[in-house]
Amino acid sequence: MNSTPALAATNSDKTGASRIPAALSWNGKVLRLLDQTKLPAEEVYIDVASVALLEDCIFRLVVRGAPAIGCAAAFGTVLIAREISKSISGGAWLGEFDRRCEHLIGVRPTAVNLKWAVERCRRVVHEMKPLPLVTEISAALDREAQAILSDDKAMCNQIGRHGAEWLCTLLGKRKEVTLMTHCNAGALATGGTGTALAVMYAAQNMGLNVNVFADETRPLLQGARLTSWELSRAGIDVTVICDNMAASVLRDRKPDAVIVGADRIAANGDTANKIGTYGLAILAKHHGVPFLVAAPSSTFDLTLENGSEIPIEERARKEIAESNGRQTVPDEADVFNPAFDVTPAALIAGWVTEKGVLKPPFSNL
Amino acid sequence: MNSTPALAATNSDKTGASRIPAALSWNGKVLRLLDQTKLPAEEVYIDVASVALLEDCIFRLVVRGAPAIGCAAAFGTVLIAREISKSISGGAWLGEFDRRCEHLIGVRPTAVNLKWAVERCRRVVHEMKPLPLVTEISAALDREAQAILSDDKAMCNQIGRHGAEWLCTLLGKRKEVTLMTHCNAGALATGGTGTALAVMYAAQNMGLNVNVFADETRPLLQGARLTSWELSRAGIDVTVICDNMAASVLRDRKPDAVIVGADRIAANGDTANKIGTYGLAILAKHHGVPFLVAAPSSTFDLTLENGSEIPIEERARKEIAESNGRQTVPDEADVFNPAFDVTPAALIAGWVTEKGVLKPPFSNL
Repeated sequence: MNSTPALAATNSDKTGASRIPAALSWNGKVLRLLDQTKLPAEEVYIDVASVALLEDCIFRLVVRGAPAIGCAAAFGTVLIAREISKSISGGAWLGEFDRRCEHLIGVRPTAVNLKWAVERCRRVVHEMKPLPLVTEISAALDREAQAILSDDKAMCNQIGRHGAEWLCTLLGKRKEVTLMTHCNAGALATGGTGTALAVMYAAQNMGLNVNVFADETRPLLQGARLTSWELSRAGIDVTVICDNMAASVLRDRKPDAVIVGADRIAANGDTANKIGTYGLAILAKHHGVPFLVAAPSSTFDLTLENGSEIPIEERARKEIAESNGRQTVPDEADVFNPAFDVTPAALIAGWVTEKGVLKPPFSNL
Repeated sequence: MNSTPALAATNSDKTGASRIPAALSWNGKVLRLLDQTKLPAEEVYIDVASVALLEDCIFRLVVRGAPAIGCAAAFGTVLIAREISKSISGGAWLGEFDRRCEHLIGVRPTAVNLKWAVERCRRVVHEMKPLPLVTEISAALDREAQAILSDDKAMCNQIGRHGAEWLCTLLGKRKEVTLMTHCNAGALATGGTGTALAVMYAAQNMGLNVNVFADETRPLLQGARLTSWELSRAGIDVTVICDNMAASVLRDRKPDAVIVGADRIAANGDTANKIGTYGLAILAKHHGVPFLVAAPSSTFDLTLENGSEIPIEERARKEIAESNGRQTVPDEADVFNPAFDVTPAALIAGWVTEKGVLKPPFSNL
């Protein structure tokens, strides 16, 4: 683990939002990951040059967020090709490559982008017949991984632009906007500037003065630790609140909109996202504040009629029952720890995608 | 600090709810306090025989909850009388007693019950003219403190009974009841069985099978640490959730009612309580679940027309920005930490008091 200054660690793009941190960057040889487990106390980067280290980083949530994991894994296939070529050649090469790709996919089996990105890179290799020299294979994988990262950045920028334009319409001539968000749907979760937070970065870039209330997002505190870190680094004023303060803030501080990300969206618009999103949507409705979901089209699962078909993962007791090593719930008490909830479409004002701000039945997707 | 088995540490009363823990007990010489800062990991009692130690315990929240603090301070006046009599007698005695009482009141100047209880005991001394022997003064103070504690226990039991009868009416023939609560309005906060939790204990005692969802109650986790501890000790099934899971639980587990305590209630019924109560009341309304407030008549401040006149205390940044010594919010981000919020009367189905379940304008108080 060390830092190489040559690797850019920000999302510099045409929008000029150069202070937005990047979850990952690639210099052709080394994948640099921002260690999200150390935030916000320490900003540490891990330079990943081996598949074993990459798998460890994905497993330990050094890199997290489905799109960011997908991008990291795509570069992982370059590392795989490089590593096996040191000891294997000829007919055995392709079999070993496939085997190592499967192993990488297995590190977080539920992260659909991980599988999707590795499969996309693997297909590039399988379509090269006869198999060329390993330098050519590696170059092709490098190009494909770069394309995946570049697509992800473009998708984030488009979501940001569509969402910010929606906000400008809402605000009219006002240049001051107060937003609220939950969890982390930002640069740290994608290869680009995020989804919900991309809207904030784009709004800032369009000249709006953006203020954000970030729910801390129990139990894992992604809002406190990650959202507040990346927004403040980008020069956006952010105030962290406990999740249970959202109602007071909605009443007394009158935010213009709430914007969150999504994990899965059904055909009718019902949206699964981090636990607490459903309650926040009810509170927003009660106070007349529009509630937006920002997500790429790949998050829509139109095979599901509605949200009742989305399975909800329950996570470990200790996420709630311990606080940095201290016991906070007695052994005799139960703990219920659902990781996600489903917000009914009726509570959502619009779905901000790379193709525009949509509504069910999402015929533009 | 040590344990004397002779001191009972439970609320044994006629209802038979003998496993309900007591925040404090008095054996005529020593005040035993359950150290609430150590819960739930350790059940430690502190035997208090000096005023200095009592003041330290009140300051460090070893004993917390306005009624419990009031009871502890009442016994503190016995300790004061005993201590000053070792070195002072005659005309100087009363002045020194008053001075020490003022000092005790100053330990937590915002806790109204602390001042109220000490003043009530002080009045007993001032009404004795001419001032008798210190043994007689001490005996009178001891009787007054016992009366304060005994009144508090009776008040808790009456609130419990009225609330449980309300629940029985709601349930009809059903014997299974699922309730939800926020923060800790229990035995640990009073001299008796609590306010909101007194209703649960009384319901259990009437033969109902009581299940409780307890919000962990960020940032200080009174629900996770205290409510779950005292309910499970009393044999009531309790499940701790993060505050942001309440909406999911209200939808999917369909509790019969939400019951919370109160810090101050205005004449129109607007109710100040621990931060998060307002949001929970909106969520309960959205799901058609009745929302009850349980509080003694002393919590009603009928001089306030409505809740907008109740001042809201803001507390320290580090309560949110640190987790058991670990930094969880970056220095660049702001933190907003209101300790209370005000729930409008329209969201509240009834106010459970020692005089019955009331509604505004509270003419029975």
